Amino acid sequence: MIVVIMKNGASAESIRAVVDLVESKGYHPNVTTNDDHVAVSFGSACSNGLAEQLQAMPDVEKTFTNDASYRLVSRIMHPEPTIVACGAVPVGTSHIVIIAGPCSVESESQIIETALAVKEAGAHILRGGAYKPRTSPYSFQGLGEPALEMLARARERSGLPFVTEVVSIQHLDIVQRYADMIQIGTRNAQNYPLLQAAGLFNKPVLLKRGLMMTVDEFLMSAEHILAQGNGRVILCERGIRTFEPSTRSTLDISAVPILKQRTHLPVMVDPSHAAGKPALIPPLAKAAVAAGVDGIMIETHTHPHLALSDGAQSLRPEILFRLITDLRAVAQAVGRTLN
Amino acid sequence: MIVVIMKNGASAESIRAVVDLVESKGYHPNVTTNDDHVAVSFGSACSNGLAEQLQAMPDVEKTFTNDASYRLVSRIMHPEPTIVACGAVPVGTSHIVIIAGPCSVESESQIIETALAVKEAGAHILRGGAYKPRTSPYSFQGLGEPALEMLARARERSGLPFVTEVVSIQHLDIVQRYADMIQIGTRNAQNYPLLQAAGLFNKPVLLKRGLMMTVDEFLMSAEHILAQGNGRVILCERGIRTFEPSTRSTLDISAVPILKQRTHLPVMVDPSHAAGKPALIPPLAKAAVAAGVDGIMIETHTHPHLALSDGAQSLRPEILFRLITDLRAVAQAVGRTLN
Amino acid sequence: MIVVIMKNGASAESIRAVVDLVESKGYHPNVTTNDDHVAVSFGSACSNGLAEQLQAMPDVEKTFTNDASYRLVSRIMHPEPTIVACGAVPVGTSHIVIIAGPCSVESESQIIETALAVKEAGAHILRGGAYKPRTSPYSFQGLGEPALEMLARARERSGLPFVTEVVSIQHLDIVQRYADMIQIGTRNAQNYPLLQAAGLFNKPVLLKRGLMMTVDEFLMSAEHILAQGNGRVILCERGIRTFEPSTRSTLDISAVPILKQRTHLPVMVDPSHAAGKPALIPPLAKAAVAAGVDGIMIETHTHPHLALSDGAQSLRPEILFRLITDLRAVAQAVGRTLN
Amino acid sequence: MIVVIMKNGASAESIRAVVDLVESKGYHPNVTTNDDHVAVSFGSACSNGLAEQLQAMPDVEKTFTNDASYRLVSRIMHPEPTIVACGAVPVGTSHIVIIAGPCSVESESQIIETALAVKEAGAHILRGGAYKPRTSPYSFQGLGEPALEMLARARERSGLPFVTEVVSIQHLDIVQRYADMIQIGTRNAQNYPLLQAAGLFNKPVLLKRGLMMTVDEFLMSAEHILAQGNGRVILCERGIRTFEPSTRSTLDISAVPILKQRTHLPVMVDPSHAAGKPALIPPLAKAAVAAGVDGIMIETHTHPHLALSDGAQSLRPEILFRLITDLRAVAQAVGRTLN
Repeated sequence: MIVVIMKNGASAESIRAVVDLVESKGYHPNVTTNDDHVAVSFGSACSNGLAEQLQAMPDVEKTFTNDASYRLVSRIMHPEPTIVACGAVPVGTSHIVIIAGPCSVESESQIIETALAVKEAGAHILRGGAYKPRTSPYSFQGLGEPALEMLARARERSGLPFVTEVVSIQHLDIVQRYADMIQIGTRNAQNYPLLQAAGLFNKPVLLKRGLMMTVDEFLMSAEHILAQGNGRVILCERGIRTFEPSTRSTLDISAVPILKQRTHLPVMVDPSHAAGKPALIPPLAKAAVAAGVDGIMIETHTHPHLALSDGAQSLRPEILFRLITDLRAVAQAVGRTLN
Repeated sequence: MIVVIMKNGASAESIRAVVDLVESKGYHPNVTTNDDHVAVSFGSACSNGLAEQLQAMPDVEKTFTNDASYRLVSRIMHPEPTIVACGAVPVGTSHIVIIAGPCSVESESQIIETALAVKEAGAHILRGGAYKPRTSPYSFQGLGEPALEMLARARERSGLPFVTEVVSIQHLDIVQRYADMIQIGTRNAQNYPLLQAAGLFNKPVLLKRGLMMTVDEFLMSAEHILAQGNGRVILCERGIRTFEPSTRSTLDISAVPILKQRTHLPVMVDPSHAAGKPALIPPLAKAAVAAGVDGIMIETHTHPHLALSDGAQSLRPEILFRLITDLRAVAQAVGRTLN
Repeated sequence: MIVVIMKNGASAESIRAVVDLVESKGYHPNVTTNDDHVAVSFGSACSNGLAEQLQAMPDVEKTFTNDASYRLVSRIMHPEPTIVACGAVPVGTSHIVIIAGPCSVESESQIIETALAVKEAGAHILRGGAYKPRTSPYSFQGLGEPALEMLARARERSGLPFVTEVVSIQHLDIVQRYADMIQIGTRNAQNYPLLQAAGLFNKPVLLKRGLMMTVDEFLMSAEHILAQGNGRVILCERGIRTFEPSTRSTLDISAVPILKQRTHLPVMVDPSHAAGKPALIPPLAKAAVAAGVDGIMIETHTHPHLALSDGAQSLRPEILFRLITDLRAVAQAVGRTLN
Repeated sequence: MIVVIMKNGASAESIRAVVDLVESKGYHPNVTTNDDHVAVSFGSACSNGLAEQLQAMPDVEKTFTNDASYRLVSRIMHPEPTIVACGAVPVGTSHIVIIAGPCSVESESQIIETALAVKEAGAHILRGGAYKPRTSPYSFQGLGEPALEMLARARERSGLPFVTEVVSIQHLDIVQRYADMIQIGTRNAQNYPLLQAAGLFNKPVLLKRGLMMTVDEFLMSAEHILAQGNGRVILCERGIRTFEPSTRSTLDISAVPILKQRTHLPVMVDPSHAAGKPALIPPLAKAAVAAGVDGIMIETHTHPHLALSDGAQSLRPEILFRLITDLRAVAQAVGRTLN
């Protein structure tokens, strides 16, 4: 892709002239406006001659080639970090955000009790599954719409906005009507019709990395959402599949600074699903904050041994409280805050 | 899971007695009937006492534990190989089946020309993409329904049944009305709502392994289809993701005999997507036949350099012809035929 | 392995009785004494009867099964953390230790200049390669013994002890005569004759994890050293090989808390080799300290662009200084110190 | 690397002129002579100007860039396949070679009995371990020199040459005095001092691929041997480490045609260590022959359940006999023979 950055205050005529020249060569230019400048991008390869011609035009600040095939998520095109609000909670500021809650919503009392407990422990956003993508067709698949109503009541009682996963286009509309943020999970990270459909709503999307996706493929999946007009995406690293059997997956901690370099979108880490073992969650959460994440997502259950799914890796609220206290210290050590 | 195999000709009373005993212990038994025997399965763990009690009941042939959490796809429950017909072509017999065609349908003349060419080369089933799942939202996404009509005309002209990929539940109904077999691709191999929806039609499904899936997870994805009532599933190994950069993915040739051991469903290999390089396709196709597959799927294009997608890895029909000739010899060497 | 822990103050007779019983059953017991108790371990499987018999004997506190096949490195047998001194620098205390220096020793002035610079920046131990294991036989292989002399002079001038890699048994004796600590690198992590030879000297060994080794195999490699009598081993995580191309290898941050659970040996992280990119080293080093390491190893070069090997990933001393300042804050946040 | 191929019959003066020009630009040219032409190679990057200047010189046939950093193993420089003789058995011809025998030599009677049995079954070369690299220091480590004598007696009795592994430079001299071929195993595939030492003897080397080595790193390890003067190297693919747990490692069948493209050295496959399960060995061995290998290495034990190491994956001689019969058919199907 060739990117032409126009000077601050470039005239509409200058911009038009650049677009016309690009079109006259048979390319389809894409014009984006950021806070203080306009960028014109097009194609995926280009004669050097054209780049030089563009460089010489009025109000052109610079022209360069962007090899990555993502555009809208790219930090090159949008250097300022994007802040995505989930309910009233902004993600991507200097404040670290904690999402907590059970794998699955099991009953109204369970989710209300948990919401109040994780709020008390210091969490900012509630999570809970209504629709579950399960490897086995014989496992618990979630309570569906009733769970969405329970989550809404838990939000009312606790004041915490909530995020819940959508596993099918059919449920997207109903989920987005209830939820403050839509989660697209690991197994659907390359389900492009679902990504595109989520791009048509004006709801934030928490997109989890696939178990075998490279960082660039992950960004490309986010691009599918942004390309439909929804720029409110948060990326969540949750472990990749490797040969190491000690953990459920291997948390790719390097992905945090790499994502921060390549995109303006907020970045979170889910140590619960990565590790699959409660004792590893605190050190991994601290590592993630030290590496620069904007938020942490932690599975929490008031009675882990009774959970219908993923109980083994859930923290009890009192452990979450201690962990958040510890994370606060690490956040300060790296120039962030955790309220 | 505990499995109780009833003797050939077991009486309804004996079966009922087994079911009653299992239910009296709080389990939910699942009764399946195969050609010549009835099996009662339940639970996921069991007191040894119960297994022994069952073993001693009238008409019980044997009782055993099946650790895998798939049931319907399991060879233990269904020892005879399943034959899945795609149009008039049976897959899973002693005859090796060849599927060939382009990555994408690009025009009516292209797909008809290709259908005639691959038939001439010896292929039995035509493939061609109407809906394409592409990593980048800016890549060619397929022609959609018009491509289905072109495939139908190519079928009419060549006599070859066709398989085409479905990437979204929304397109499932229309695709199954045109196609002889539905392909569910690598990126959707854990898209459970799509798998379940495909399980509601009476169309064969060609299910490709996900880049990140273990053999057991692959079988579990097939189980999602069978659990809805559609038993016509063909499994296709197409490479897994590893650290090796010489190929697009690493063909897991061991998966062929392992799948054959664990399931009664037919097994194919797609060397084109695994390798991503034309020169590797013939040796990998020969290796797959030698390892025991029921069929091979090969990307073929009459003009690879003009292809809108995956051209670089497509074979020309004359190369396909030579390859099928070579595969015929390998098939005979391992006691199979290729007509 | 069955482990019998004797009570604090168990009599010699009681211990003898346990040993005799074990031997009478045909096993070869291994008796180890820690600060406050004696443990008798043997075999790798055992009749339940024997375990129960042992449990009932005088002065036996508890009996349990340890599935791992490492013994001496196991935390079960040795719950207190081991402190390994490199020169006068103890590793494994509450103080985080920094090792810094160039990939290769290139000249006396270079290594002395670097030693003084990294000391000034806050490092505690100098690193520098005299013998280099290089993938290509045509790459720079290190200066050999002259480099050891240069390192010794740099130690004299800076007061920093040094660690250097040994790639061959032939060089082990000369390296251990000069160095304060011997490094066994990634490619030799399963070179058992080299590990065993290093176990015969009374020099600390910095053992790096192989690119392909599980955590348990890594511990088993350390066991080869301890089994020869040298208990002074420090384990260093430096990235494993995965499919992700953005980094040279994938830092397995979870390995830090897992190693801490399973072994009493000190644990370090080398973010330079894991990442292969200078910009990723600070966030990864902070993550490692937050996750609980005892030390960090960082490639540092006074003139990275002139380095004969690995220059691209080396930090300049002024960057190292800033990083150590930042690490100090993170260390304090997790209850450690960095002097 | 820039490679200049001189015309057939190029004069010494023309060659000298090319070398002089290359040296005058500051490069160190490497001159190699193959059957019918001389090649001059140098550097790793080059001004286009120089390549063009060289192209224009007398007796220069062509000039090209070879990105790989291996030279001597490269097929570009040496297009004819190399035949490596192990005893009187040539490897790398149209005849497929079978190596068989136990993981470890356990006694004289065991190895003689096995040698006679595998010869009877159709094998051409005997294998057997005298020195074993074992993950645990507490596992059986091999009988050492006495095992070499037993292997020599088994050779005498059976007429089969033998290959045995060397795990340490210290044993290289004694092993090469007894053995017809030296094996360097998976864990030592990047033990460069050992590779280089093996390059100093005039004994064939069977080099196994490391569990996490790319194909290019594998070739580079072979280059370390050839660079010392020993060109008699056979490469053996034996599985790479992936996430799939059904096999001990994942046989990278694609590596066979890729190695055949990139190097002139013979290529073998070891399905026993790759699979770790006897039932998978026949299909994988057939796949390897179909993919184009020059030989197969199979663990065989007359009493697998009594083996001191790797018994579980060993085939009994009668199974080997049937397998070789089957492989003969596959070999013929791909234009090879197996005598």
